[in-house]
Amino acid sequence: MIHTPLRLGMVGGGQGAFIGGVHRIAARLDGQFSLVAGALSSDPERARASAAELGIEAERSYASFQEMAEMEAARADGIQVVSIVTPNHLHFAAAKAFLEAGIHVICDKPVTSTLSDAKALAGIVAGAGKLFVLTHNYTGYPMVRQARQMVRDGLLGDLRVVQVEYPQDWLTEKVEDTGAKGAVWRTDPNQSGAGGSTGDIGTHAYHLARFVTGLELDALLADLDAFVPGRQLDDNANVLLRFKAVGGTPAAKGMLWASQVAPGNENGLRLRVYGTKGGIEWFQPEPNALWFTPFNQPKQLITRNGAGAMAAATRVSRIPAGHPEGYLEGFATIYAEAARAIRATREGGNMRSDVLYPGITDGVEGVAFVDACVRSTRANGAWTRLDL
Amino acid sequence: MIHTPLRLGMVGGGQGAFIGGVHRIAARLDGQFSLVAGALSSDPERARASAAELGIEAERSYASFQEMAEMEAARADGIQVVSIVTPNHLHFAAAKAFLEAGIHVICDKPVTSTLSDAKALAGIVAGAGKLFVLTHNYTGYPMVRQARQMVRDGLLGDLRVVQVEYPQDWLTEKVEDTGAKGAVWRTDPNQSGAGGSTGDIGTHAYHLARFVTGLELDALLADLDAFVPGRQLDDNANVLLRFKAVGGTPAAKGMLWASQVAPGNENGLRLRVYGTKGGIEWFQPEPNALWFTPFNQPKQLITRNGAGAMAAATRVSRIPAGHPEGYLEGFATIYAEAARAIRATREGGNMRSDVLYPGITDGVEGVAFVDACVRSTRANGAWTRLDL
Amino acid sequence: MIHTPLRLGMVGGGQGAFIGGVHRIAARLDGQFSLVAGALSSDPERARASAAELGIEAERSYASFQEMAEMEAARADGIQVVSIVTPNHLHFAAAKAFLEAGIHVICDKPVTSTLSDAKALAGIVAGAGKLFVLTHNYTGYPMVRQARQMVRDGLLGDLRVVQVEYPQDWLTEKVEDTGAKGAVWRTDPNQSGAGGSTGDIGTHAYHLARFVTGLELDALLADLDAFVPGRQLDDNANVLLRFKAVGGTPAAKGMLWASQVAPGNENGLRLRVYGTKGGIEWFQPEPNALWFTPFNQPKQLITRNGAGAMAAATRVSRIPAGHPEGYLEGFATIYAEAARAIRATREGGNMRSDVLYPGITDGVEGVAFVDACVRSTRANGAWTRLDL
Amino acid sequence: MIHTPLRLGMVGGGQGAFIGGVHRIAARLDGQFSLVAGALSSDPERARASAAELGIEAERSYASFQEMAEMEAARADGIQVVSIVTPNHLHFAAAKAFLEAGIHVICDKPVTSTLSDAKALAGIVAGAGKLFVLTHNYTGYPMVRQARQMVRDGLLGDLRVVQVEYPQDWLTEKVEDTGAKGAVWRTDPNQSGAGGSTGDIGTHAYHLARFVTGLELDALLADLDAFVPGRQLDDNANVLLRFKAVGGTPAAKGMLWASQVAPGNENGLRLRVYGTKGGIEWFQPEPNALWFTPFNQPKQLITRNGAGAMAAATRVSRIPAGHPEGYLEGFATIYAEAARAIRATREGGNMRSDVLYPGITDGVEGVAFVDACVRSTRANGAWTRLDL
Repeated sequence: MIHTPLRLGMVGGGQGAFIGGVHRIAARLDGQFSLVAGALSSDPERARASAAELGIEAERSYASFQEMAEMEAARADGIQVVSIVTPNHLHFAAAKAFLEAGIHVICDKPVTSTLSDAKALAGIVAGAGKLFVLTHNYTGYPMVRQARQMVRDGLLGDLRVVQVEYPQDWLTEKVEDTGAKGAVWRTDPNQSGAGGSTGDIGTHAYHLARFVTGLELDALLADLDAFVPGRQLDDNANVLLRFKAVGGTPAAKGMLWASQVAPGNENGLRLRVYGTKGGIEWFQPEPNALWFTPFNQPKQLITRNGAGAMAAATRVSRIPAGHPEGYLEGFATIYAEAARAIRATREGGNMRSDVLYPGITDGVEGVAFVDACVRSTRANGAWTRLDL
Repeated sequence: MIHTPLRLGMVGGGQGAFIGGVHRIAARLDGQFSLVAGALSSDPERARASAAELGIEAERSYASFQEMAEMEAARADGIQVVSIVTPNHLHFAAAKAFLEAGIHVICDKPVTSTLSDAKALAGIVAGAGKLFVLTHNYTGYPMVRQARQMVRDGLLGDLRVVQVEYPQDWLTEKVEDTGAKGAVWRTDPNQSGAGGSTGDIGTHAYHLARFVTGLELDALLADLDAFVPGRQLDDNANVLLRFKAVGGTPAAKGMLWASQVAPGNENGLRLRVYGTKGGIEWFQPEPNALWFTPFNQPKQLITRNGAGAMAAATRVSRIPAGHPEGYLEGFATIYAEAARAIRATREGGNMRSDVLYPGITDGVEGVAFVDACVRSTRANGAWTRLDL
Repeated sequence: MIHTPLRLGMVGGGQGAFIGGVHRIAARLDGQFSLVAGALSSDPERARASAAELGIEAERSYASFQEMAEMEAARADGIQVVSIVTPNHLHFAAAKAFLEAGIHVICDKPVTSTLSDAKALAGIVAGAGKLFVLTHNYTGYPMVRQARQMVRDGLLGDLRVVQVEYPQDWLTEKVEDTGAKGAVWRTDPNQSGAGGSTGDIGTHAYHLARFVTGLELDALLADLDAFVPGRQLDDNANVLLRFKAVGGTPAAKGMLWASQVAPGNENGLRLRVYGTKGGIEWFQPEPNALWFTPFNQPKQLITRNGAGAMAAATRVSRIPAGHPEGYLEGFATIYAEAARAIRATREGGNMRSDVLYPGITDGVEGVAFVDACVRSTRANGAWTRLDL
Repeated sequence: MIHTPLRLGMVGGGQGAFIGGVHRIAARLDGQFSLVAGALSSDPERARASAAELGIEAERSYASFQEMAEMEAARADGIQVVSIVTPNHLHFAAAKAFLEAGIHVICDKPVTSTLSDAKALAGIVAGAGKLFVLTHNYTGYPMVRQARQMVRDGLLGDLRVVQVEYPQDWLTEKVEDTGAKGAVWRTDPNQSGAGGSTGDIGTHAYHLARFVTGLELDALLADLDAFVPGRQLDDNANVLLRFKAVGGTPAAKGMLWASQVAPGNENGLRLRVYGTKGGIEWFQPEPNALWFTPFNQPKQLITRNGAGAMAAATRVSRIPAGHPEGYLEGFATIYAEAARAIRATREGGNMRSDVLYPGITDGVEGVAFVDACVRSTRANGAWTRLDL
């Protein structure tokens, strides 16, 4: 197969931004995308300088995403797909513009800053007939894929208990007062939405649990806090989960903890799932290993591309066992899956069934998760259903 | 100091019992106790055989604890202290008998099977003027002592977040149907009380969090399950915790998870505490180490008797750093503290202020914790105060 | 079975000594020994005070081991076994005295300070018909027993590679100049013998490798250093090992590293063994786990008393999986094995075949190991055979 | 700074090769190179197909590296740098051809299959005035850079002990007989050179130790084995190291272990260094962490971009602490450093002093290491100097 790289544009991600650089590396890593256009910053000077540094031609560095959507759609060599890496509140309008211009969208999470926007976007995606890929990047880790496959293959039996957590420490102090851009918008309800830690990392934890277990949520009960004085959005979330029963078995239960004020935790995303036959445990800082603990058998440590690794994991691995892959490789896998899906679309929909990427439905559910956490907390901890 | 070992009796703990053997090793380890009397089993033959094997003279092997309390109190060389290691529902009557006979009591947890019994026993302890020591043995681990001291010394700042869990897997299947004694009584409401996992291990987790943080509980919210079909008591407990505010700082929040159905977990007691200045983490299977993570500084791994170990930890350590101490040593420390307290009592109360052991107040609170978990669950997850 | 504790005496181990206290806890832990006599210190006052503190009657606190051997042998209730816990150079004479008095001996390692003494003692043991137990205590760890059994059962296939190391850091600086007793004699050739780190910890590492693998040494090649200026004995040992071929397979090779000057290592004894079918790894600071890595299968973590634990391990375990046992329990197992062997001797030699303890042959080989390391180093790293 | 990607060619790395794909990802990851030419395989059909798949124009897919060097040198838009990723024995001729054509070279290790070739190549490099970059990729890991800086800053004091190892298990069985390409040439003296495990991974371990410590080798003593029957090159290497003394301090000593027959080890490269003031430990499978153990202080775990990370590490990091970077990122850093050096060359040599990459001197020393290991083994373990 000879693949010309897909022509990619980017909205946001100018100099100094963290996640834009990550998206660009992810797009480059497997050689499937070529960045040719951008509306990289709302500051024209920064937009221009950023574009130049990235080798984007001056005429394809745009002042706004609206202009970019219009102009690129009109070019014969216009972008085929755009990455949206702005703060949350800008996702909706940008995604809408590109979808309506007939351009595929890869978008950072949470999908929007409000639930109504998310639902509206779902309608737009449905109507546009274009791909919408949400970068819940942790689902790109090979051993997360393996965990999901093991659950589906019944190796854990009927699921009972889910423990998922995503602790960080970078907001332990009021760093948004220092003007640090990433902290400022993430703690601002107008830019971030109703959720702080719930929106920024809780949605990742929630999606990871859903992705691996396949369980659907029945209701949640949340106790959110903003521990740092003066902070407007939650920086710690303690959440109980009740899943829907599957078949005749008792409904599974879970706990979800997200925190930005837990010193010593950098990006400590951890998932543990237990069923009638066994358990699994995965921890982002050591992502190449998956604990599998079949009941009454020795604990097994399965490594990426090592003995016991399944096709679901090896197909998204790049290098031999023991040489660690990391965050960027997992992120790149979301891009690689997007590339496969986009190419399949062009070729008439013959996409391999094992291509996996989070989409708009996951995006709506993520914002609904945040919304439910906030409503449950306001009700002093009531069991609350997602408003889907 | 020349110490004659204290004369010890034991109720329960005949052949085949697990925890009785642990208590005996703990009593022997530091040479502070001599086991001289017992009512080791309700089965007379087993009681006799067990006593003989342990070198207890035949005339001091009793058919009942009532007889033992009476006879030993009457001897000049009668026991000074008794260990009660029966199933939970028998603790109350036995403890009452010995306290009223003027004999100190060391008792396994939870202190009783009902909250009313616990409260009644508190009154009896208060009236008896005798020591009552509850074997929340994890508080005997040196690095747990260190964790407590670090919190008290302010090294974590104002506390915000507490995460405590105690997962096991031994009740993943319905092992009580095989007749295994320990499983039978622990899953029987008549012997165990209202709590299954909450009573057997949740009380340990709860007490550990209280011991280390010093925080008092405001309210809890619980979601208990009995996942194994036909089991009468909870085998999984998801609990949210709200602590009382200290000074003007926001109240700390917590999560507690206890499970007996989490395959791959043997006795995975883990405590994490986070404050404004730093965090700590301790994990029972690697008990000689304590993570200390001061905010914005490299993570520190402090080892028992190693660099950074405080007097609170080294005073209850026996061997150099790097040579692991374990569960039995921690348990023995509770006995050693009891011995120090008993000797101090005899010598007029001049006990060192750093002698620490759980007592009747902890016992009542433990049973109240179970009671509140059950009530909260029955109310479909309502915030519930301890009935103290 | 009703067991009266065996009557135990002790030579050395007075107040302030480390290893004497360890031996006493080990002797007490399983209730198989009662300490009734001692020659605890060459300083009469310290000997007296130490004995009193330990509850030894004044008349059985002796000024010298010679007196103790003579007097105790003459008593009807005299000691049946003695523990020798002095510096190395005193082991020989003490062991000789008790063996010739018809008293079993438990002795700390290395067995003597010179190879000629070791060989002479072997002759005495052979003639005395009494047990001689050497406390290579690491062989008492259940998972070390399991490792040995797995090798014997062929689970690793033909052995090829052995990696063993015992790094410490306590002699990184010249602590012997501070007068610290344990450091003073261990760095003094007159008290310690020809080996520093080789004798004190290298012998443990060497014995552990021998115990687990069953391989016999063909030759070694050593590069010893005394890194701390002015130190007379080695504080770091780099050693290559060549084992004798077994059957028609290539001879296994190994490396042994012992160090007392490796900051951050407390008692980091680690053994790794690799064969044609699989590997194992064991690490003292986490002694309840054993990695088993069958070739081309997922890595297995086998826990003490957990799934996959063999009878060889469970028979020397005391508590359930997940509750850590440690150094003292392993040490106590050597004592418990000694008790079983002594009782079997009295009962006519019907000892269970699975009772294991290091003996005089191991002792001689340990001193020969030190001797060969020193000779190889003097020859600038020549392959050197043990002088057995 | 606006950077047009450097024009890159590749020799070797056609379909099915492992390391060629790694080099390409590394070249792409930071967007500094554009692959435009190749002599990807000696099989013309495979070369053509591989080039097409990679988007290389047909006319720049060459049948031989000689043709490629000649033709590209003649083009105005010819390649500026070439990556050589063939089996070892082909490195020399290819590197020579490109250097003499005025093209910078990035070459996989070991630099050549014979020591005479390596020395000859050093002369060619010196004469060509072009960059020669050797992909000892582990030196691109941020925490390896940190370790090196900590040694240079004196945080470990005077170095005493170096322990380095690189165990694998993939050659435990005679996989070369299955025809697996990577195994075939690595075990063939004609393609690999005199060293098996020593050449393939021992050179990495040796270079890592040299890079971090800065110590120069005085002599080594090796015991090489080919454990798998019929294998011609070593698959296990036990090596003692003696470094040259620095100042008046005692010379440091070390051990190096390389193995391809250690089941359970995938790519277990580990380095430990100990000095008078502290120690460090780094392990490739968990590359984002570095243990720093200052003597008599708590152990510190320093994380990439976390607290305690130095500029030497953060300048080669891409993402925040806690999000793991891995093998490909480290490899990409060697390419990024090469790009910086090449650009500096063009701009007149103003290269930042902190740009680090292994070069021809490291390459010669690596082959000399293999040569010395083989000679020492043939001399039954004699101390042997590098022939530099």
